[in-house]
Parts: sequence; structure tokens; C-alpha cells
Amino acid sequence: MKIKDQNQNKKAIILFSGGLDSTTCLSIALKEGYSPFLLTVNYGQRHDFEIKAAIRIAKYLDVEDHSIIDINLSHFGGSALTDNIEVPKNRDLRHFDDIPVTYVPARNTVFLSLALAWAETLDANNIFIGVNALDYSGYPDCRPEYIESFEKTANLATKAGVLGKKFKIHTPLINMTKAEIINSGLQLGVDYSMTSSCYDPKKDGAPCSECDACTLRLKGFEEALAKDPLNYH
Amino acid sequence: MKIKDQNQNKKAIILFSGGLDSTTCLSIALKEGYSPFLLTVNYGQRHDFEIKAAIRIAKYLDVEDHSIIDINLSHFGGSALTDNIEVPKNRDLRHFDDIPVTYVPARNTVFLSLALAWAETLDANNIFIGVNALDYSGYPDCRPEYIESFEKTANLATKAGVLGKKFKIHTPLINMTKAEIINSGLQLGVDYSMTSSCYDPKKDGAPCSECDACTLRLKGFEEALAKDPLNYH
Repeated sequence: MKIKDQNQNKKAIILFSGGLDSTTCLSIALKEGYSPFLLTVNYGQRHDFEIKAAIRIAKYLDVEDHSIIDINLSHFGGSALTDNIEVPKNRDLRHFDDIPVTYVPARNTVFLSLALAWAETLDANNIFIGVNALDYSGYPDCRPEYIESFEKTANLATKAGVLGKKFKIHTPLINMTKAEIINSGLQLGVDYSMTSSCYDPKKDGAPCSECDACTLRLKGFEEALAKDPLNYH
Repeated sequence: MKIKDQNQNKKAIILFSGGLDSTTCLSIALKEGYSPFLLTVNYGQRHDFEIKAAIRIAKYLDVEDHSIIDINLSHFGGSALTDNIEVPKNRDLRHFDDIPVTYVPARNTVFLSLALAWAETLDANNIFIGVNALDYSGYPDCRPEYIESFEKTANLATKAGVLGKKFKIHTPLINMTKAEIINSGLQLGVDYSMTSSCYDPKKDGAPCSECDACTLRLKGFEEALAKDPLNYH
């Protein structure tokens, strides 16, 4: 009975985009002994390389429970990641005050609410999300105060919360630099050649090297004194 | 300029199922001078009479902005409203402690997060949701403390919130009895024959009269000393 309870509490929904951060987040959850249930949201991104990377990595890591749920946030518009707005290139990312056009309105709130729906159905207590408050692009829904507030809301929202079970939102990367994230991942054996980060990849899927996501990734590898295995051709 | 600002602040996303509560909520928002943007979520309900009612009412009230967004919550399961779980009939609804199987895990959190995404894109400050904490079916995500917590989370989650604009979640029905809701609606000219409440309608769309939604609706009309125009045959 005790073992069963323990397993119950180790069930975790992991928001999983197939990018560098969420793949590292998944590896950390696996190392900590959680049973992963991967949730990938197909939210109307302009390209589907991310989804393909997520499927590839889930298979490679032998994670059987992988849900891909469709929700067309491009219906609402308002972001360069879902709309015909140009993805900015070669920005100076030392200025975090500026929330860029790649921000997708309320994206993490939509993602976390879907994770919560699945967690409650599975009787899982844990949700992992690979948000990062340091080397981030200035997105408000990556900050610790936002995550804490969502966790409180989740425990008020749900039957499980009312019955005294507590949902925990795990953010293992939140206080890491991109270099620290990469080093943690490399120590855990993450194969970063399988991950996809670029906001605006070339037709063959090669990263552009100039968008915010590529800029942060390349800077991270440089500071981690490691080589990014992706082919920036 | 002042008029423009005023109009901006009067834009409201209204979560709209085509049921008795959300139709009354819409009428109250219209009376209060809000410009409505209706959001209907097709979440994998077992029947689509609700969606059809929503479309009919939006057309009847001449509301042009009506988004119907698909998201398959039945993918996660766990509710009689999306799964092959039997809808309970003839329950004694004086006992609210019991959260029933018609509860859809995290449904209002998913709905509000979608409303937030659209609100931010539209530069709208207001979200209306027809939740009700008195004559409800025991759903945790209908309580005032949940709504307050979501509002806080929304203001931390978004670019608009960070820039000092405040989102307001309006819940005009939250402290009303079902009879009070019906009386408000009747005073505002709501045609309740167009609304759909039943969890388990017959093949021709007629309400079952025995599920929680029908029971609460019929009791509400009785207490409001009014006749429900629906045909319970």
C-alpha cells in the first residue's frame, strides 16, 4: 500500500515542447524518480519541427505516455510564433524590460491549465514546466511569482485540491542560467542534437542562429564551454 | 481620446456555453454597456446541443464576434460530460459536499486561460463568466476564492498585467440563487427557450428533466414563479 501511494505521488505531467529547456526538465524529473506523462501542445505554431522533436525524444527515452493536444491559439493571433508577424533577429538580450513579439498571450497559463486537467484525471500530484527566469526572453509567465500564483489557483480549482491533495508545480530550471541548464543536461546524458529551439527554422529544419531562442542557446553553450551539436549551416 | 479609452475598457470576453447562466451573464454584460466577444469552447462534450444553442443565441442577439474554439478535453477523460460515464439522475442537490462525476477536471481554469489569451490579444480588460456559488453542483472552480485567485494569476501571467493594465474577472451571478438569475434574465428580456442546460438530452435535443442541470433549472423556475419554456416531453 505504501509503495502504491509512493508511486501515485511520483506521477508527473511534464510540459514538453521538444526544446532544450523542457528536455532538460524531463531528464531532471526522470533522475528524481518521477513517472513521466508528457504533454505536448500543438498550439498553432508556424512550424512543426518542435512537435517532431518532441515525438522523437519521447520515443528515444522510451516514455510511453505522451499526449499531443491540439489547440489553435493562432485563432486569437497576437504573436510572431503563431501569426504572420516577423520573428525579430539579432536582438540585444541584455535588455529584458522589453517583452518581444514572440510572446504568445497567456501561453503558459493555457499549458498549465491543460496539464492540471490531465493531472487531476490521472490522480497525479506533480506538474513540471521548464520555465526559466534568468536567461529568458522577458516573458511574464516565466517568473516565480506567476508560478506560485498558478499553483495556489490550481489547488482551489480542483476536486483534488478541495479534498486536501496538493498539486505541486515543479520548475527545476527557474533559477539556472542557460549554461547551467546545459551543463545539468549534459551530466544527465541529454542528447541536445535531438532538441529544437529555433523560432524561425529554415525549410530543412536547421536553426536560423539569429532569433532570441537561437541567440540564448548559442550563448548558453558558449558559457557552458560546450559545443551545440545542432547544424547551424 | 477619452471615448476611445472608454470603449477599450468596455471590451469584454464572455465565456458563453448557450446555457441559462451564461446567456443571463451575457445579457447583464450588454446591459452594463460592455462590447461582447463571445467565447464558446467545444471541449468534447458528449452532445453538441449546447454549441448549437450558443450559435443561435449569438445570431439572435446580433453579436458578431463569436469564437468557437476546439479543445478535446475528452482526450484526458475523467468526467461524465466528456466520457462514457453515466450522468447521474434525480440526485438530492441539497448535499453539496459531494463533487459529482459531471465535474470536468480543471474546466473553468482551461476556459478562463483561453479567455485571457483572447483578452490580451484584443486589448480587452474584462472577462465575464457565469459561475454560481449558491445553486451550483458542487464544482470547486465556481467558488469566489477560486475566481479571485485566477484573477491574480492572470495579472501576473500577462504582458498587459506587467504593464499595469488590470484584468477583471466579472462573475455577476456568483451570489445569486437560480431563481434570482432567472428573474434577472426575464427582466432583461432573455428568451430562455433558446438556451440549453441538460447534461444528457434526448436525441431530438429535449432536456431529460432528471440530471443535476435540469433539476436545478426546474427548481429555479419554480422558485422564480415562472414557467420554463423548454419542452420537457
